Amino acid sequence: MPAISQRGHEMPASPIRKLVPYADAAKKRGTKVYHLNIGQPDIVTPSAIMDAIKHTDIEVIEYSHSAGNESYRQKLTKYYGAFGVNVSANEIIITTGGSEAILFGFLACLNPGDEVIIPEPFYANYNGFAIAAGVKVVPVTSGIADGFALPPISAFEEKITPLTRAIVICNPNNPTGYLYGMEELESLKDIVVKHNLYLFSDEAYREFSYTGPLLSVMQMQGADDNLVVMDTISKRYSACGARLGALVTKNKAVLDAVMKFAQARLSPPTFAQIAGEAALDLPADYFATTKAEYQRRRDLLVSRLNAMPGVFCPNPGGAFYAMASLPIDDSDRFCQWLLESFEHEGATVMMAPATGFYASAGLGKQEVRLAYVLNLAALNKAMDCLEAALQVYPGRNA
Amino acid sequence: MPAISQRGHEMPASPIRKLVPYADAAKKRGTKVYHLNIGQPDIVTPSAIMDAIKHTDIEVIEYSHSAGNESYRQKLTKYYGAFGVNVSANEIIITTGGSEAILFGFLACLNPGDEVIIPEPFYANYNGFAIAAGVKVVPVTSGIADGFALPPISAFEEKITPLTRAIVICNPNNPTGYLYGMEELESLKDIVVKHNLYLFSDEAYREFSYTGPLLSVMQMQGADDNLVVMDTISKRYSACGARLGALVTKNKAVLDAVMKFAQARLSPPTFAQIAGEAALDLPADYFATTKAEYQRRRDLLVSRLNAMPGVFCPNPGGAFYAMASLPIDDSDRFCQWLLESFEHEGATVMMAPATGFYASAGLGKQEVRLAYVLNLAALNKAMDCLEAALQVYPGRNA
Repeated sequence: MPAISQRGHEMPASPIRKLVPYADAAKKRGTKVYHLNIGQPDIVTPSAIMDAIKHTDIEVIEYSHSAGNESYRQKLTKYYGAFGVNVSANEIIITTGGSEAILFGFLACLNPGDEVIIPEPFYANYNGFAIAAGVKVVPVTSGIADGFALPPISAFEEKITPLTRAIVICNPNNPTGYLYGMEELESLKDIVVKHNLYLFSDEAYREFSYTGPLLSVMQMQGADDNLVVMDTISKRYSACGARLGALVTKNKAVLDAVMKFAQARLSPPTFAQIAGEAALDLPADYFATTKAEYQRRRDLLVSRLNAMPGVFCPNPGGAFYAMASLPIDDSDRFCQWLLESFEHEGATVMMAPATGFYASAGLGKQEVRLAYVLNLAALNKAMDCLEAALQVYPGRNA
Repeated sequence: MPAISQRGHEMPASPIRKLVPYADAAKKRGTKVYHLNIGQPDIVTPSAIMDAIKHTDIEVIEYSHSAGNESYRQKLTKYYGAFGVNVSANEIIITTGGSEAILFGFLACLNPGDEVIIPEPFYANYNGFAIAAGVKVVPVTSGIADGFALPPISAFEEKITPLTRAIVICNPNNPTGYLYGMEELESLKDIVVKHNLYLFSDEAYREFSYTGPLLSVMQMQGADDNLVVMDTISKRYSACGARLGALVTKNKAVLDAVMKFAQARLSPPTFAQIAGEAALDLPADYFATTKAEYQRRRDLLVSRLNAMPGVFCPNPGGAFYAMASLPIDDSDRFCQWLLESFEHEGATVMMAPATGFYASAGLGKQEVRLAYVLNLAALNKAMDCLEAALQVYPGRNA
């Protein structure tokens, strides 16, 4: 039998999905499972998006332009312009989800053996794209005591070697919910300009910013060739399954290289592009309404968590995730136990152990990530489960 | 400015798309352009597919399973079973187009520096996926004089080195239209088993087989761990833009590794999966009707070509492409001249120079690929253009 590749061995299985068999078994036993483990919102996709797809007059589902439909990219320039990011349609390449934007960015900018610095905890799938591109992830640790603020610049500079080629951030952050402010972004800009690095900025949750204005790294001046934004409509329009994203940069060489990867896979999905284009015509208050809903959920979740003895949850400034430290021995064991051996009023809660979001071994063992993607009533019940569970969990710390 | 990666430099620009600016200019001058240059059929997407999408009752466009919807994979087992390929739903991983199946197959099975043997001329985007995976393409040349038949086994064995890990075929073939028969497939099986290689089989055009039964490498026995099929709905249902494919294998280690790449990109597109599942309910005569239409086009195209002095076009056994040798100096120059400097009754024809399909430099200079994706009337007019053009082209050979 021919062997699989080294990277096939090295690819991590999804840390979020490894508990799924236990959740399935719990459901089979009749236990209700509140899913706070994955960023799949319950927010209904705007009807204008669904209507655009249902009323399409397409007769042949043709390939689109490899960079995405020109009409969609033109309209996107207005979307970006509204928050001060001035790009032309040629500086936007439409991708199959934000995932493909990350993969193409890595493939086009990084050589096998290069290093990318990422503040940890970080979105676990960066590991997968790094392995696909043959790149080494070098973590800089942020801590729950500081609310996962950007580590000091000196911590980044300590990690820079001749192999370092990029810094990757996610802002607002998944999994921490931390929102880097403009000062922190400016300090990152200074590092990447000084050391001639790329700054890859995953802005999937850009609109969900509770404590400050909507931010993009591309609002900054003087680093056009260093900045590459990875974007997606998944979260902002509750359209995760459509698979539509974008890579945005003013660096012409990067655009040319990414375009060749885009041509090799022909085109992004047609129906997703119809969805994305329709979304740009949503009323101006769409994000205000959605954001207010997430903020209510955040406020409930964080106050419930912090009211539990031994639990600490810093108040996240953006996205729809919170990280909490729990008085437990091991978050992987606890999350599995919740699904295998616990129920409260016929229900339990599924969370993501934080260990999967750290590259440094041993970190995150007392932390979990909670996605507040369920409505207030469901969130309250999920918190009832967690509160009750912590009182009886055999591995509770003193 | 940070540099782009080595593979970003090495990625080839699409050879099919490089003439597009000349076609655009011709259209601006008012010249009608018959597009025989790209595999985008004019066949209307079956209304049952469009209706399934238009009548969906989805409220939230959610991530699907990373391997694709279970219901779709279950139904696909019947589709494959109907032509003797017995696979379970767990042996099918749904991908974003056949493109992603090729990329995931290469990433999961091949190490950087490995060699893959591909009969040339071949689908040019294999080069792109090979570069993305860091793999070297080693061509084995097939010739127009033999109708692009599989080169003799000895030609493959001459190319095998300690770095060889796979043979890649496309059957029926793009760009040649050649249909490998079961005897040729069995001989390839013998090589891959003997040398412990993978046989990647791109079967995008499986249903369009004019001279023999519908074939898949997975109909063969005794090489389950070597065989990996890359599939797509793009061509068989005229749904290129949906972006839906599949990787099919019985090799468990490959499935596990591919699944990790699939998890990293979360899920294949939702609407495409609705399309793909609806397509499986099309009436049994759908392929007979479509195939008959393509066969009429093929018959017209090939007879028109062979009636032109100095032109030779072997009769393709499958797919919807034909390769023709023309009495010209240089196919790149000729195809560009057709768009820049020629018209016949207000029209011209766009074809793909064959040079882009060969890895060996210098081959294909007198050959073009024609995609018979237009209706009979349009094909006839395109052939009128080509016939007239060959009479006046300044670079015509004696």
